[in-house]
Order: sequence, then structure tokens, then C-alpha cells
Amino acid sequence: MFRIAVDVLGGDGAPDVPIEAAIAVGKEQNVEIALLGPEEIIRDRLRRISGTTGLAVKIVHAPRTISGSEAQVKAIRTQRDSSIVRGFELLRSGEVDALVSAGSTGALMAGGLLIGGRMPGISRPALPVCAPSVTGGRVVLLDVGVNPDAKPHHLLQYAVMGIVYSRGLLKVRDPAVYLLNIGEEEGKGNELARAAYRLMRCSLGNAFRGNIEARDILSGKADVVVTDGFTGNVTLKCIEGVAAILFGALKKELKATFRTKIAGILARPAFVRVKNALDYSEYGGVPLLGLNTLCIKCHGSSNAKAFANGIRVALSALESRFLDAIREGVAGLKPSEEAEEANHGDQNSD
Amino acid sequence: MFRIAVDVLGGDGAPDVPIEAAIAVGKEQNVEIALLGPEEIIRDRLRRISGTTGLAVKIVHAPRTISGSEAQVKAIRTQRDSSIVRGFELLRSGEVDALVSAGSTGALMAGGLLIGGRMPGISRPALPVCAPSVTGGRVVLLDVGVNPDAKPHHLLQYAVMGIVYSRGLLKVRDPAVYLLNIGEEEGKGNELARAAYRLMRCSLGNAFRGNIEARDILSGKADVVVTDGFTGNVTLKCIEGVAAILFGALKKELKATFRTKIAGILARPAFVRVKNALDYSEYGGVPLLGLNTLCIKCHGSSNAKAFANGIRVALSALESRFLDAIREGVAGLKPSEEAEEANHGDQNSD
Repeated sequence: MFRIAVDVLGGDGAPDVPIEAAIAVGKEQNVEIALLGPEEIIRDRLRRISGTTGLAVKIVHAPRTISGSEAQVKAIRTQRDSSIVRGFELLRSGEVDALVSAGSTGALMAGGLLIGGRMPGISRPALPVCAPSVTGGRVVLLDVGVNPDAKPHHLLQYAVMGIVYSRGLLKVRDPAVYLLNIGEEEGKGNELARAAYRLMRCSLGNAFRGNIEARDILSGKADVVVTDGFTGNVTLKCIEGVAAILFGALKKELKATFRTKIAGILARPAFVRVKNALDYSEYGGVPLLGLNTLCIKCHGSSNAKAFANGIRVALSALESRFLDAIREGVAGLKPSEEAEEANHGDQNSD
Repeated sequence: MFRIAVDVLGGDGAPDVPIEAAIAVGKEQNVEIALLGPEEIIRDRLRRISGTTGLAVKIVHAPRTISGSEAQVKAIRTQRDSSIVRGFELLRSGEVDALVSAGSTGALMAGGLLIGGRMPGISRPALPVCAPSVTGGRVVLLDVGVNPDAKPHHLLQYAVMGIVYSRGLLKVRDPAVYLLNIGEEEGKGNELARAAYRLMRCSLGNAFRGNIEARDILSGKADVVVTDGFTGNVTLKCIEGVAAILFGALKKELKATFRTKIAGILARPAFVRVKNALDYSEYGGVPLLGLNTLCIKCHGSSNAKAFANGIRVALSALESRFLDAIREGVAGLKPSEEAEEANHGDQNSD
């Protein structure tokens, strides 16, 4: 039976959303749940939910959380009673198999690195996003914000982690990996993209399909899109921003005349379907990549349904031996002169 | 009277669109037009348009064009009879004041650099885009693709050119300049963004308002958004791609049921208004920035209305003494240790 730690204090809906989600998954699956948060509050909430007797749920007292605005490395070192520190300590000691949290990405990444450690063979951890494509599939875009100054071999390692993600969690048999670039031809892009292209070409074999432009990320042709944390974060926020602006502008225009008001009312189901299809927060959580321990990060605004999906992602990752697959993927990278050189440079400069 | 050279061979609508647009502007404004293209074809087209007698239109024979797929530096050097080379030669000799073209951006930039030259004080030219914001204004985003490996002082120079653009062509009295970044706080971002922030903070005074995230580019708070050519190009294509995907998905969903089909028909005017408001190709053309000569690049898919707007942008730039304003802006940059150092480094490494 897998054992999942659930951070009760992270996210906008804390503590109710994580508790409700944990109980829902506990009822449906053969899983042991550790709820991390203030004991009294959790006890009080559990009393109000029916059907919890007989579930394998325990409480791990953690009276406080670490917010996104704190100095996170310092917070991890000093706030030993926080839910995030307790969670990673349980992971490190092997008392749980995964941690699921809607808390601050920065605090979770800091906790993962300082307590559980970075995975051997991975130079930099990465944050992926799992976005819906127009063809109904999903595309893994990474890194979207951990490492703004990436090197070519970091991008190669992201590609390996993206492939494991796509295979293990999205069940894509033969993931198509692309490098985000400003043109499709080889030789396009900045220094980083040109060097990463050569490295991916010689190390990933047929999985690497070349460059992809930003307009095609959601087109369905890519299963994995690799980029540095700066470009990835800009891209993600651009997608969010443009979608919000377009929906906002349409909403306003539909209110302009009687005719379009009627249209707006009739069109509601279509709008809702498109919004839901494009809302990647619905898909649960994403694994923080490159850590020695398995942490699933849910969107801060997750409702109980989304958070429960995040717990299911953790179970799916455990069933597919997600961390082992990344270890094997990194170990299996074909050695190349360029990669050797890059790794050598990394050891000196990182 | 200003003299404008119009490239008859550039863009999807060539030769009809540029000719029609040039004649339309020639009829409405006190301007001398030089049509660059195959003489016979232009004569034939002019015969079919009424009311051209008395207009100050001359033909400069240029039998060929340079496409975007050619090796552009070589093409500029060897294809002396191309419309782009002829255009920049007329600019250099002072026979015309501006060149308007819907041809390849790369070919135009290469022609501008090789024939007219780079503006003193500008290390790298830049391509801007003038995008509509949700509040009805316009935001200048640059660089969107000329210089993928920008240095901090390049970004500072882009900011100066963006300010002149916003003031001179968009009539914004006091343009608000932002740096595209992955967080709003100082200290966010990659090495380039952090260094550019410091440089802009100490060199631009109150015009510099700090960092902006990609989701806020079109929000209306920024008049100028500065970034490197790699990030800018990704951002631009992301905006285009997401808009196309959303409209496509809505169109499909509106066809799903009888109710939504009716809604789609009734909602058409609202959709058209939003699409038009967001279509920056409607706004005419943008000046290639950092050149010694004034070249306005129109979108390749411009219709005659858009191309005519591009010619009007050229006239507006000439009236506002656009190139002189950039020269003055660059000359007026407050010297700072960091800028000195950066410029020194640039002289050595560029």
C-alpha cells in the first residue's frame, strides 16, 4: 500500500480542500494518508466528514506553513515544524512515498533540495507544466521557472525527465520531444538553443524531433517541449494572459447589443467547454522534477477535485516507478563529446 | 514634400497591394512616391487605376525581389537590381526619405545594415511590434527577433528606441517602459534581465517602471516592453498561437449543438470586433529600429488598407523627425559605470 503525505496548509483552499481531497481518494483507493497540518484543526474537520472511520488516515502535527514570500532556504532551515519540512522529512526517512501540496513552489523546491536532495545525474531541478493540446492530448512544457539561467546539458536532462513524465504519467508510448525555438530550422535561435539542439540531436536519438515555435506548443504535435526556465515561465504566463484577455474581450463584446447578449447566453456551454479544456489546473498536479523524493505540486487555486487528481498523479507516479525511470533515463544518456565537455564545465562552474 | 519609396514586390499581395496603397496615399497626402518594381508591370497596373494623372508618382525599375529564404547578406551584395537594394540605395543617396515594404524582414534588415548602415550609438538593430492593449492603447514590444543573444546595454538601447517610437508615432507623452521578466520584484530573472534592470534603472530615470510579466504585456499599463530577440519572438508567436487556438476551439464548440450554432451566428459581430481589435497587422507597419535610414516594414499578409497605413506611419515618422529623436535619445543616455563597462565590453567582443 502506498503512503501519501498531504500538505493540509498549502493553497488557497487550505485546510478544507486538501483534507476533503485526501479523504475522497482514501475512500476510493488502497492508500495510506498522512495529513500534515495543525492537529486540532484536522481532527475538527475529520469529525465533520462522514465515512472516515476505517480509512488509513493519520495526522502529523505541523502547526505552520511556509509562504511564497518568505526567504525559502532560510525558512526550510528554521521552520522545522512547518508542513513542508515535515513532509520532506517523512519522505527522506521512508515513512511516506510521496508528498502532495498546493503550497509555494519555491518552498517545496527548496525543501526537496535541502532535505531529500537532488537526484544524482541531474544538474538542476525543473518545474513542468502539463498543458492540454488542441487535439485533446497533453503536452509537457519544462522548465517553467526553476532555473532561469539554464545550460545546454540542463535542457538535455529536462528532455529525459519530460520523456519519463509523458510515458509514465500520460501513457504516451513514444513521446515526441521538441526544443522551443524561434524558427524550425537547425541553426536558429540564441547560443543556448543552438547548443542544446546539437546536444539533444546526438543524445536523444529519434525521440528528438527538432525545434518548435511557440505558436505550435499546443498544436498537438509535441508531447514534450523543452526550454530554459526564463523562456518557459514567460511562455506559460503569456498563454494564461492571452487566454484571459481574449475571454474578457469576448465577454465585454457579447454584452454590447441585445443580439450579442442573447448570443452570449446561448453560447455559454461552448465557452465553458473551451475554458475547461484549456484549464490545466483541472489536471491535478505536476511532479517537481530532479529531486530524490517524489513531490506533486498542485495549483494554489485547486479545488477538492483538482487536488484529488493531484493525489492520483502521485499514485500513478509510484505505480510507474517514476523516480527510478528518471534515474535510468539519465544514466542511459548516450555519452557524447559535447555532453562530456558540458558536464565537465558544469562541475567547475556550478 | 516627403518622398517615399514603396517596394512593389514585397508581401503576399504584391504587386497590386503596394501599388493600390501607394496611389491611395498619394491622392490624400502631399507626398512623392517612388514605386520600386518591374517597370512594365507597374505601368500596366497604373493604367488600370483611375485618377493617377497629376500624382507625384515615379517608377524605379527593379525586376526582382529577395525572399526570406535566401542567404540575405549574400543576396543584398549580389542582387543589386532587387527592389530592396534599390530602395536602400535611394535612401542612402538622399533621393527618398523613407522605404515602405512588406518584404522579408531579414532581407530588409540586411539591406538596411549593409547599405545605409547602423545608427551610431546603437549596438544592435531591433524589430518592434506594435500590439493593441485591452484598454484600447498600443504597446511597443521589442526586440521580437533580430538579436537573439542580446546584452544588457542592447536592451537599454531598445528602451530608448521604444520611447521614441511611443512618443513620436503613438503620441504617448510620457511612455511607461517595462522590462519583460518572470517576476515583478527587482532581482528576478536570468542574468541578462537582472543586469538590464540595473542598467535601465540608473539610465532611464522615471520612464523605467520596472519588471512586467508576460501576462500583463497587453494589459495597458505598459507603453514599451523591452526584451531580448529570443524571448520577444517566443512571446509574439505565443500570443498569435494562443489567439488562433482559442478562436479555433470556440468556433468548433459553437458548431456542436443547435443552440450553440444559433449562438455562433448571433455572436458573429462580437467575434469580428475582438478579432479586429487584436489584429496588430491592421495597424500598418513598424519601423526597423537602429538603422541610419527609415524603413517601415508592413506585415507580409497586408491588404491595401494595412499597407497604406504603413505608408502613413512613414510620413508620421518623417514629420516627428523619428531618426533624429533616436540619435538624440541615445546621445542623452546618462553615463553610468555599468553602461561604460558594458559598452567597453561590447567594443571588444562585438
